[in-house]
Parts: sequence; C-alpha cells; structure tokens
Amino acid sequence: AVLLALVSWQATASDPIRVNGFVCKNPMEVNADNFFKAAALDKPRVTNKVGSNVTLINVMQIAGLNTLGISIARIDYAPLGQNPPHTHPRATEILTVLEGTLYVGFVTSNQPAPNRNKFLSKVLNKGDVFVFPAGLIHFQFNPNPHKPAIAIAALSSQNPGAITIANAVFGSDPQISDDVLAKAFQVEKNTIDWLQAQFWENNHN
Amino acid sequence: AVLLALVSWQATASDPIRVNGFVCKNPMEVNADNFFKAAALDKPRVTNKVGSNVTLINVMQIAGLNTLGISIARIDYAPLGQNPPHTHPRATEILTVLEGTLYVGFVTSNQPAPNRNKFLSKVLNKGDVFVFPAGLIHFQFNPNPHKPAIAIAALSSQNPGAITIANAVFGSDPQISDDVLAKAFQVEKNTIDWLQAQFWENNHN
Amino acid sequence: AVLLALVSWQATASDPIRVNGFVCKNPMEVNADNFFKAAALDKPRVTNKVGSNVTLINVMQIAGLNTLGISIARIDYAPLGQNPPHTHPRATEILTVLEGTLYVGFVTSNQPAPNRNKFLSKVLNKGDVFVFPAGLIHFQFNPNPHKPAIAIAALSSQNPGAITIANAVFGSDPQISDDVLAKAFQVEKNTIDWLQAQFWENNHN
Amino acid sequence: AVLLALVSWQATASDPIRVNGFVCKNPMEVNADNFFKAAALDKPRVTNKVGSNVTLINVMQIAGLNTLGISIARIDYAPLGQNPPHTHPRATEILTVLEGTLYVGFVTSNQPAPNRNKFLSKVLNKGDVFVFPAGLIHFQFNPNPHKPAIAIAALSSQNPGAITIANAVFGSDPQISDDVLAKAFQVEKNTIDWLQAQFWENNHN
Amino acid sequence: AVLLALVSWQATASDPIRVNGFVCKNPMEVNADNFFKAAALDKPRVTNKVGSNVTLINVMQIAGLNTLGISIARIDYAPLGQNPPHTHPRATEILTVLEGTLYVGFVTSNQPAPNRNKFLSKVLNKGDVFVFPAGLIHFQFNPNPHKPAIAIAALSSQNPGAITIANAVFGSDPQISDDVLAKAFQVEKNTIDWLQAQFWENNHN
Amino acid sequence: AVLLALVSWQATASDPIRVNGFVCKNPMEVNADNFFKAAALDKPRVTNKVGSNVTLINVMQIAGLNTLGISIARIDYAPLGQNPPHTHPRATEILTVLEGTLYVGFVTSNQPAPNRNKFLSKVLNKGDVFVFPAGLIHFQFNPNPHKPAIAIAALSSQNPGAITIANAVFGSDPQISDDVLAKAFQVEKNTIDWLQAQFWENNHN
Repeated sequence: AVLLALVSWQATASDPIRVNGFVCKNPMEVNADNFFKAAALDKPRVTNKVGSNVTLINVMQIAGLNTLGISIARIDYAPLGQNPPHTHPRATEILTVLEGTLYVGFVTSNQPAPNRNKFLSKVLNKGDVFVFPAGLIHFQFNPNPHKPAIAIAALSSQNPGAITIANAVFGSDPQISDDVLAKAFQVEKNTIDWLQAQFWENNHN
Repeated sequence: AVLLALVSWQATASDPIRVNGFVCKNPMEVNADNFFKAAALDKPRVTNKVGSNVTLINVMQIAGLNTLGISIARIDYAPLGQNPPHTHPRATEILTVLEGTLYVGFVTSNQPAPNRNKFLSKVLNKGDVFVFPAGLIHFQFNPNPHKPAIAIAALSSQNPGAITIANAVFGSDPQISDDVLAKAFQVEKNTIDWLQAQFWENNHN
Repeated sequence: AVLLALVSWQATASDPIRVNGFVCKNPMEVNADNFFKAAALDKPRVTNKVGSNVTLINVMQIAGLNTLGISIARIDYAPLGQNPPHTHPRATEILTVLEGTLYVGFVTSNQPAPNRNKFLSKVLNKGDVFVFPAGLIHFQFNPNPHKPAIAIAALSSQNPGAITIANAVFGSDPQISDDVLAKAFQVEKNTIDWLQAQFWENNHN
Repeated sequence: AVLLALVSWQATASDPIRVNGFVCKNPMEVNADNFFKAAALDKPRVTNKVGSNVTLINVMQIAGLNTLGISIARIDYAPLGQNPPHTHPRATEILTVLEGTLYVGFVTSNQPAPNRNKFLSKVLNKGDVFVFPAGLIHFQFNPNPHKPAIAIAALSSQNPGAITIANAVFGSDPQISDDVLAKAFQVEKNTIDWLQAQFWENNHN
Repeated sequence: AVLLALVSWQATASDPIRVNGFVCKNPMEVNADNFFKAAALDKPRVTNKVGSNVTLINVMQIAGLNTLGISIARIDYAPLGQNPPHTHPRATEILTVLEGTLYVGFVTSNQPAPNRNKFLSKVLNKGDVFVFPAGLIHFQFNPNPHKPAIAIAALSSQNPGAITIANAVFGSDPQISDDVLAKAFQVEKNTIDWLQAQFWENNHN
Repeated sequence: AVLLALVSWQATASDPIRVNGFVCKNPMEVNADNFFKAAALDKPRVTNKVGSNVTLINVMQIAGLNTLGISIARIDYAPLGQNPPHTHPRATEILTVLEGTLYVGFVTSNQPAPNRNKFLSKVLNKGDVFVFPAGLIHFQFNPNPHKPAIAIAALSSQNPGAITIANAVFGSDPQISDDVLAKAFQVEKNTIDWLQAQFWENNHN
C-alpha cells in the first residue's frame, strides 16, 4: 500500500525543502493549525463573468494535506451562472447542493461507439449528490434566473488542478496558434482570433 | 499512475460479478443515475445516544464511485452531541462546518517522544475547514448546549470504513475477552463487563 | 507497493468475468498471443478531417496488458494535419517523431499567476522526444504543407482514454445545452448551434 | 505503476533533505549498511506493564527502507501478557508465532449488520500465521500463565505507525476533554478522570 | 489513496469469481479462518539440491491476504546451502536470521558508473535484519559447513513471485534458444546445452 | 488516487533538492525544455559485443518526467544481435518493431506447475507489438544474419532500471563469491571464475 506518514507541512525557512512542490515542516513542530483553515466557506463569494466562483481549500491552503489525497471547495453560482466545462487532471469530484438547483453533466472519453463522447446529465436539487469521474469534462449550471445556488464539492487529491476548457484553449499565455485552433474547431481563423481577444476570467480564487 | 477506467457499477443480475466487493455493470449500460444519489443531505437527521448522526454517501450508495477514491457525508450533532472517537481505516477526512461550532481533534500515533500520542485540537466555527489524517483517532464535539451543529465531510476512499472506538472495543460481536480488555484498559474485569453490557449504538445510517 | 500479478486476459466464455471492465482468463491458459498484436504500426493510416490518425494498442487490443499500466500508439499526420487539442484522463504521454516535423504543446492548469494556463510549446524534429503530463490539454501539428509526419507515442495506462476537446464539447451525444456552451465560450448561441451541427470526426481507430 | 527508485537513505549532513520525513543520501554513497540493522531480534525483551514489547525495525532503523513499503518486528509476551488493542494506520500485519501460544483477534469496521463490529479470533500455536487487515483494531494475548510467547510480525509499510487504543484515548498529551470521553464511553466523568490519571506505558521501544 | 476494502476471499463455488486471479468470497461469509494458516513455520523443511527451502505463505495459502500487500516465509538453509540468486518481480523483502549465519547480498541495476551492478553484501548473525529492494537480484548463503540456518522473511506483496535466475534462464519450459543464451553468457553452445540438460529444482514448496 | 502535481525538474543550484533522487526545480521556472530531449532516436547506434544498444530516455534525460511514470527507448540490433536476458525491476515494457524481425520471449515466475518458468515467445515482424510484464526475464534476438533490426520500446516508469542477467551475476563489482555461483548454476568453480573474468559490456548508453 502506498501509505505515507504525516510528513509535509509549510516551512517558514528562507530556503525550504519541497515535496510535491510544497515545502516541508519538521515533524517535531506540527500543530493543529497545520491542519486548519479559517476558510469562511459559509460566506457567499462574488461570482465572475460566467457566473460562478470556486473557493478551493487544497494543499496550498492547508499544508498538512500534503500526500493525504483530498481537498474541498465551496462553489457559488449566480442566477443562470455556471461553472463552465472543465476537467480536474488529478482527481474525481463528488458534489452536493447546499442551495438552489443545478443542471450538471459530464462527457465520457473516446470509448467505442455507441458510448463515445456520451453526455450524462442530471438536474440536482438541494441535498442531492453527484460524481464527476477523474479527468472527464464536466460542468454545473444554475438554471434559475432569480436565485443563486451553492454547492460543496470534494476532490480526491490534495492538488487536483482545474482546466477550464475555454480558458486553456483560447486564453493561454502565450496563445495557441490560430492555425491549429481554427482547424481543430472547424471555424475560420478570424473566429479564433476574436475568441483569443476576449478576456478569459478564472473562477478559482 | 494507478488510474482506473470507469468500470464498476451496480448490476441487477441475480448472480452479479463483484470488484472490491461490489457488483459490476456492463460499461455499455452506464447512465447518469449510476453517478447520482437523492441523498437528502440538506435534511436534519435524528441523532443517536451520543448525539450525532453520520449520513455517508459511499460506493454502496453510488455504485459509479467504485475505484474513484472519494465519498461524502453530512454529520448532524445534537446540542452537546459528539461524533465519538473513531478512525477511518482507509481514508483521510476533510470537514467544513455548515452550522454551529465544533470542538475537534485527533491523536498522533506512537511517534518518538515528545510527539507520541500528541493531541491536536481546534475549535471550528461556521465555514472553517479541518483535516483528520488517515487512520488516526479523531472526534468532533458540539460544545453548544442549546443549538445543533452540522458539518459536511469528505473522505479519500469510496469505502473509507469507520471504527467507533468504544463500539468496536466494548460492543463487538462476539465480545472480546474481559481478561484482555481489563488489562489493556487497566480496570477491573467487572468494569469491562459493565461496559460490555451497555448498548453501543452506531451513528452511521 | 501496488504490484499486481499476471491475472487478467481475454476470456472466451459466453459470460466472462471482468476486471477493470475487461474479461479475465484462467492463468493456466495464458500464452504468448495474449501479449501480442499484429498491429501493423509500420503502415501509414488514412488521416481524418483534421489530418491525423491515432492507432492505439491498449488493453482492448492486447488483453495481457490489463493492470500493467502502459500502451503504445502510432500517430499519422497529413501535411498541415494535426492531432487536435485533447487530454488523456488517465495517463502521461511520451512521444518521439519518426518522420517529419511536429509543432507540439500543452497548457498548464489553473496554477497561481503568472503560471496559470501557461502554454509550453516546441518544434520537434525526427528523433526528438517530448512529454505531455497527465490530464493536460495538448496537441501536435504538422507544419509542413507537403509532407506527412509520423510519431510513436506511449501512455502510462493500459486504458489511457482520450478526450478530443472540440468533439467532447460540441459533438457529444446528446448535445450539451447551447445556453451552457454559449456562456462558457462567450459566443452567441447560434455560433454554438452551428458548431454542434458540424461532424466531429474521431481520429482514434 | 507507482514504482520508486532506490533513492532515500540516511544523510549525515547537518541540514539534510527529507523525503517522507526522512533524510536522503546521495545515491553514489549507498552501501550495504544502509540496508542492515544489528537488531538483536533473537534476544528476549523486557515487557511492559501489560506484558509485551514490540521491537519494530522500520525506516527509522534502516534508512534504505524508505519508499520500499515493508517493516518487521519481534514481539515478546510475558505470561498472561498482551499486545493490547491497537491499529496500524498505514499497514496490514502478518504474524507468525515463534514460541508459545497466542489468542489473537480483530474487529471489523461499521459494515452493514450483521457484520458490523464482528470480532474474528483464533488461537495460534507455534508456526501458525495470521493476518490483521490494515487499520482494524486487533490484539494478541498470551493465555499461558507460566510461559512467555514470541512472535515475528511484518507490516506493509516502512512506517506503519501504531495507535494503542487505551494510550491514545486516555493517555494523550494533552488529555482529551473528559466531557467528550465520558459520553463516548458511557461512563461517569470521574471514571474518565481516573483512567486519565493512570500511567499509559508504550510497548514500542 | 489506493485503499481497498476487505473484499476477496476463497470461494468454494464451482465457478468462482476471481480478483487478481483469486476467487472471491461473499463478505457476509468471512470468518477468522480466511485470515489464518496452520503453516508449521516452526518446523524444519527438507532442503533441495542447492541446500534451501522456502515456505511462502501468500494469498494462495491465506485467501484473506488478497489486496493487502504482504506475505511471509520461512527459509531453511542446509550447511553450505543457499537460496540462489533470484528476484521478486513484485516485492521488496525484509529478512531476519532465526538460527545460524547467512552471507547475503544484492546487485544494483544499470545505474551510471561507478554504481552499475554494484554488489552490496553483508554477513548476518542471529537477530540481524537485512533488506532486499524490489526487483533486484539477491541471494542468501549459509557459510557454515556443519550447521543449518533459518530465516524469516516478509515480502511487500500478497503475491510477490520469485524468479530463480538459473532455473528461469536454463530450466524454462520450453527451453530458450541456445543461440541466444550462448551469446548472452559468452560461452559455447554446448555449455548451454549441458546447462539446459541439468535438473533445475525449485526450492519453493 | 495517487496523483502527483507537476513538481520536479532539474535544478541548477549548487546544492539542489532531490525527489526520487532527482533535483527539483521551482515550478515558477518551468519551460518546454524541461519536457524535451533532442534524443536523436532516428539515428542508428553502434551496438555492443552481444549486438545491441539501448538508448533510454528516462528522468535522467528529461527531468520533467519525474513522478510521471513513463519512459521511451530506441533499441538497435546488429545482425544476429540480441538484447540479452534482462529484467526491469520497476516497469512493464511494450515494444514495436520499426525495422527487421525479432524473436522475443519472457519466462514466467515460480507459479504452480505446469506454469512454473514457462517460456512464452513470438517472432515479431515490422509493426508488431509485444508486452513484457513487469519484473520478468525477457530478451529480443535479431535472427537475421544480414540485416539490423530496430525497435521502439516504452516502459511504465520514469526510472525503470535494467538488470542484464549475465552482467549482474558474473560482472558485478565486487564479484559474487564463486562458491555461491558455482552451486547456484551447477557448474565447477573454475567455470564461474572464467565467466567472471570476461568483460561484461553494458548495452545501455
């Protein structure tokens, strides 16, 4: 079994040692604050242009999480807001709705037909639970034009990562060649250029 | 990387195939309901004798979770109620407080002194996040004599297991020899006998 | 250590047992053909509309690969063809160029700025090697207007999966709501409708 | 596959680098002593108050064990002595009896009834082998009032950890609130206070 | 975390289900005997032609070990006997000497010079502990011409496998081409033919 | 899931930090060259005395591979040349033939008879694919007396290691005792001495 000791916490030294990219603390100096964050997950967040905000508490927020394989997030959805199509390259997600209603779904990978790119979706009400398998493209959308929605999600990694598809494809730095993207998305290059000129706002804060 | 395909779902056949003890579904028949549970995590639960209730949504509730390494729970705490000292043999837990206040803590294992059996604790308010590392004894206690508390917790396994210490030690079936327990707990055998005669109520439903 | 025995091969029984979704063979009946495929990876393939073809030899082609964590592919690129932006949800990829030139790149996930959605790219010549980390969006493009290119790629899973971004987003079955996609991609709904009306051809055969 | 190189050994530098909390050695300086310990596992140990002693050879004794996922122990049992109820948070244990007789057992976790907290036990004679699954509460007891017993045990981690239940619950530093423990164990607070006033002696040396 | 439930035991059905190649038991029917073997590890074994015998207790002996990642063995060495050069393809080994003296060693893999194929060896006395890292060629030799030796070894897999080098190279069924082996071992083909004509006796029983 | 971040790259500092034995780079300084190697895998290599050359691109060549679990190699075979019997202690191998013909095979471990040390072999032509399971002894031989052969192989570890059996057994530094080897290989000590006096040339460059 790949079972790791309690070994990695945030160090304050000027040139700290890193495991998984995170600095390590001497085990002798561990205390409860290394496993705690006053994260204010009870407080609504300001949502971004697509109408959502993800407040992720991962190993960058709680250093004691290093190697422990889990993180948690609050997600706010404005009315008609969405957490747009994205993937977590290193985690499965499980989500429950705290307030409102969510239309959620994910798309399977290139399995043999007829299951290739199959879209599985569901309307979730308060208290419902849904699972987004590791690495698959998924989204959540608040179909209510008047009320916000709130969810709590957990991810099976202390550093799950998130790749918002539109942002990574059209808002990367530097930009991906429009020759490549025009052919990939079967549109004119000036459509790509227009898309790349937009502001692709991150919803993870 | 130990990365597994979407392969295991609940089968309805009379003699189903099991992976990790759970029956498997033909991938061709997967649908969104295999990743969904109308879990009513928004609804308060009746708490047990020690004043808590854990509603865990794991692979037994959502068959599509098999091999995906995560589960989620709502925990209800009566006033002065507790989720008593317990371990998860196969998971780390991350918890956030939805309502009320919780006094939480865990005890480290037999590391070299002075860190042997060190008790790390914290008072959590609404929106705070805390981590209980895999396999360590931990608890949550609602110190408020008037108000209930609610938490959402996530665990890094689709089948984390829970071992309530008092129940496993004094309420096992059959009972552990009182000779063994009297010496282990440094008490008289009749104290053990009295403890074993109590009703040790599970708070996982 | 998570080290598995040689245990899973293609069965011929009418109702075979599956591990990871694949049927298992009695270990007593194993032979060299369970580890072999006359894959014709030396032969050029007909490329698709975006100018590429991926011939992946995974556990569906060689049953003995089950649990062994690796697969291999030949990729053909037409002149100006591309293997369009995609992810492997369960694998890292390492690639070497057999013929021609490739412009390749990947985009990092939502790390803290200034590294958020950073695009790392490189021009590869014959004999060069490049790595695409697990789960990240990446592509290869043949910039030569006259000559095809060929690559051999290996992936760190016996069932890596592939998610072609455009296909999964605009060509899923059923389609994702155009309300969701219009907002996510900051375009008009009729642009999404036009995109969803295209034929999104898979390049994995 | 999560397969790690021979990479981590005890360093002698004044400010050494740690992996999994253990300092690392330059691979160029490895020698046989990094994989060796004159552990004297053939020698009887003085047992503690509950009549046992565990001599564990783990990564703290043999630095070359780091990342290799195994450790070994000799356990001495006085007549009527026990290795009291405990868990290993990061390992399964396999044990064989070298001398004497042992009454052993473990308790399953909160599986659905009728398997909840099921106690599985066995009397072991010289040469017998028994397995204690990862994270479950287990013990060994020498029922012979006249003769000591000896066992060799192996654990599936280079740093398995041990949590002696009574010591962690009643002997932690600082103490767990007696309000919490009284309710958890269904006894009066003064019983808890009495228990906490005892000396909880570790049997791992 | 790759943490598996208690799920796999020996079934008695005529067409049992297998996980990792081993049949599974309904969790409802588990009992202590599924974790037990009257292995008689206290009894001397008859050693083979090279003077050793390995009595391995793995998942084939104790079905409850499936997925738990550990096994244990008694090794008997005749005077001047050896457990000849071999590897465990899926496990690290840790060994302690119960009786006698052992000369042990392993050879590192093709690391950059000067560490390529470095031979690390040690003389072990009663009670000493030594580690053989996963997959490396190693042996134990009893240098005493008059007394047998005994060791207990543990391995980090429930099915570690053993490849005795001489047996696998010269005693395979069918034989490896003598053209291949003559060149590989830089000897005449008739030397290979002579070697292949020997009886290569297994020491695992 | 054991999913690791992009965290480890070659550092240039005078006293770099190592993970898995490799120095780490500050994630802020990552660029495409950390995932690239101008490996010239299109160029023939000079083969060694047994007629082969392995050009392995692993984490020592591409630092960004650290933790990502894959590597790739070109193998050149002279006419009648071979990649002699060897194991990879930490990886499965998948191979495809680019030029020529190869006779390949592997030997199973000590499974119960009749599968003990079973030799599975196959003749591979251009474009064929074959799998060598982790840790098993395998080889490739070019049976053509006039033409060289070329293969591309991938391995399921960023640091798979290679143990050439003859070199590790007869060419280690220092030498293994000829008493041990003579008995293990059932030959006279002077045969061992003669073998140990040969030059055992590595084919990994």
